[in-house]
Amino acid sequence: MQKFGGTSVADAERIKSVADYIARVHKRGNGPVVVVSAMGHETDDLLEVAAKVSKSRPGREMDMLVTAGERKAMALLCMALHDLGVPADSFTGSQAGVLTNGEHTKAKILEMRPARIEAALLAGRVPVIGGAQGVSSGREVTFLGRGGSDTTAVALAKALGAEACELYTDVSGVFSADPRVVPGARKLARLSYEEMLEMNAAGCPKPAMRSVEFARTHGVRLHVRSSFTWEPGTWVEKESAMEQPIVSAVVSDQSEAKLTVAGVADHPGVAAKLFRALADKLINVDMIEQNVSLHGTTDISFTVPHDDLEAAQQVALELQRELGASGVFADPDIATVSIVGAGMKTNPGVSAMMFEVLAAEGINIEMISTSAIRLTCVVRESAADRAVIALHKAFGLDWGGGL
Amino acid sequence: MQKFGGTSVADAERIKSVADYIARVHKRGNGPVVVVSAMGHETDDLLEVAAKVSKSRPGREMDMLVTAGERKAMALLCMALHDLGVPADSFTGSQAGVLTNGEHTKAKILEMRPARIEAALLAGRVPVIGGAQGVSSGREVTFLGRGGSDTTAVALAKALGAEACELYTDVSGVFSADPRVVPGARKLARLSYEEMLEMNAAGCPKPAMRSVEFARTHGVRLHVRSSFTWEPGTWVEKESAMEQPIVSAVVSDQSEAKLTVAGVADHPGVAAKLFRALADKLINVDMIEQNVSLHGTTDISFTVPHDDLEAAQQVALELQRELGASGVFADPDIATVSIVGAGMKTNPGVSAMMFEVLAAEGINIEMISTSAIRLTCVVRESAADRAVIALHKAFGLDWGGGL
Repeated sequence: MQKFGGTSVADAERIKSVADYIARVHKRGNGPVVVVSAMGHETDDLLEVAAKVSKSRPGREMDMLVTAGERKAMALLCMALHDLGVPADSFTGSQAGVLTNGEHTKAKILEMRPARIEAALLAGRVPVIGGAQGVSSGREVTFLGRGGSDTTAVALAKALGAEACELYTDVSGVFSADPRVVPGARKLARLSYEEMLEMNAAGCPKPAMRSVEFARTHGVRLHVRSSFTWEPGTWVEKESAMEQPIVSAVVSDQSEAKLTVAGVADHPGVAAKLFRALADKLINVDMIEQNVSLHGTTDISFTVPHDDLEAAQQVALELQRELGASGVFADPDIATVSIVGAGMKTNPGVSAMMFEVLAAEGINIEMISTSAIRLTCVVRESAADRAVIALHKAFGLDWGGGL
Repeated sequence: MQKFGGTSVADAERIKSVADYIARVHKRGNGPVVVVSAMGHETDDLLEVAAKVSKSRPGREMDMLVTAGERKAMALLCMALHDLGVPADSFTGSQAGVLTNGEHTKAKILEMRPARIEAALLAGRVPVIGGAQGVSSGREVTFLGRGGSDTTAVALAKALGAEACELYTDVSGVFSADPRVVPGARKLARLSYEEMLEMNAAGCPKPAMRSVEFARTHGVRLHVRSSFTWEPGTWVEKESAMEQPIVSAVVSDQSEAKLTVAGVADHPGVAAKLFRALADKLINVDMIEQNVSLHGTTDISFTVPHDDLEAAQQVALELQRELGASGVFADPDIATVSIVGAGMKTNPGVSAMMFEVLAAEGINIEMISTSAIRLTCVVRESAADRAVIALHKAFGLDWGGGL
């Protein structure tokens, strides 16, 4: 099972290069089964023209529109394969048996019935499936949402009993930190599903979190790798019985903002009221922190995506009187810095070490959130890169290092 | 039943304009049922990228690719309709029940099962169907070929028992001559199917000949009209019992070339051999003329599309010895000029008059071909426009005139 992302099939040259690679794999044995995303910025272009044509943009029609993107990519890839003498057939999500619910623009897979894919494989052909597509029980075309191609690939890998699911992209794997920030960042050979999920949550966008969850649930091994260099990448799989590195990666996210509702009465139901109101507006709250109450009042701070900051502030201001709050303060200039590692749970000194490293850099910690294998601090946005570099070094992750 | 061609939905503004018109029609009653082509040059763009990616371009994948074009247009049109408060649903050819044979890139409609279209109409919704698309019994996506959207519209009109099929395009109807050549050309209020077919054969490209044939077979009235001015256009329907105009239109075609195989033995089977060989190479021969034999040999002239001239010449040269021909002569600089009219068959003097008009203009006639309601002359390409203008005037077709 091989999945190629948008940058992997961005233009005619890239498509031919991917076809050449698939042809080599095909010659060595059966298959492969291929899932493909829309070319380059195709999906964005389609969304842009939709925005020009319509304000309402009903989900059913949006799904009909955007699925044209993968359709184009999969047909072109099959043509390129034919040129190389490889028999290949493209399949829409519907033809591939990706059965979903009817929730347009973000449909969920209910069942896989890949009879046509299996038949193609038996006939010695390479099936190329449009990613992120499905069909509902009402026979409507559905779209799984951005990043849905990864989910299609993982679901197909599971249904076909594939050995692993290779996710080809424009980077050579998952790194111990963003190489643009940390010159000594190194590619990780393997990560557990849990580590990958925590990295996703901490701001690492690829592979799509949902597909990692699906892979974990169904025990599908992922291999995140490059369609530009074809070198081996990063395996994401079940936690090994071997001893884990304490910290595997440092991840930073500058896409969030902080909101503080100050001086609210410290009695039951206050937080519930606030976060229910935010949830009703579909605002995605990430970290939440409530200070210790000293004088019968407390401050509640939480982070939201930048895009939701204005709406969240509006909600908080509307509730201010009811909550008895003394003020609502928005702070867009924050960043989160996280360390992730499966070994953290058995190493109690890790959080202390993280705080010491940041203190030594003179970086103030504004909020803290933890999970069993992740530790996240909110810092000034301007200090984020410095924090990542210092942590990466301190936890022995620099290329050639090792704790 | 309304069909909108590529220029009618070429960009966001055009799509909104078409949606506005459909909304007005919808408010006046039920429906309409809408068939839509791909936007502007979309199909050409898709073919271009296919040419960049692949030499072989297998039909199955080409159909998967080009059908992405109408998919985009139909989804966008539905979104624009939703904005105007009109409930609308897009349907692929497969969803609309357009069942075809499996001949990719030029599939033929075998049966229409528009259950979902009927259901949408019953629910008070506007169904918008992707033109030129279908599905084969092998559940493969098929494409009816260029101009296939007209065929989809006519077939749906028949299956749904629609009153008429409106073909919206960028011209306001079918004209008595090309208005770029003849300033006095006028829009024809009505034409018989037979006249329209003869005009198609004589070089008038729209509406697609195949859809006119389908409409004639099934008795569907066509209305060719403009999506830019929305004015009433040209009706194409059963020949009326009323007296017919002798000549309805003058049509010229400069897309053909002439080939002459000179001095071939005048005995049975010679022409058969030549035209079988041409047919085997899929060369489309239009007019054929064989001179009277005077000295046991004869000349065979025929016309082919410019694009096929080289291949046709090759075939003739290969057969030259076998046919005992003295030479093969290619002439690309010709044009055909035709007069078409249902009244011709009852007016024997029409051909004489055409020849006289051309003679008076000093235009030499190189070949002649006739049908019951059409008369075609091959002339020098450089004389074609002059011939059209003179014939248009002589047969009383100029605006304000009348024979």
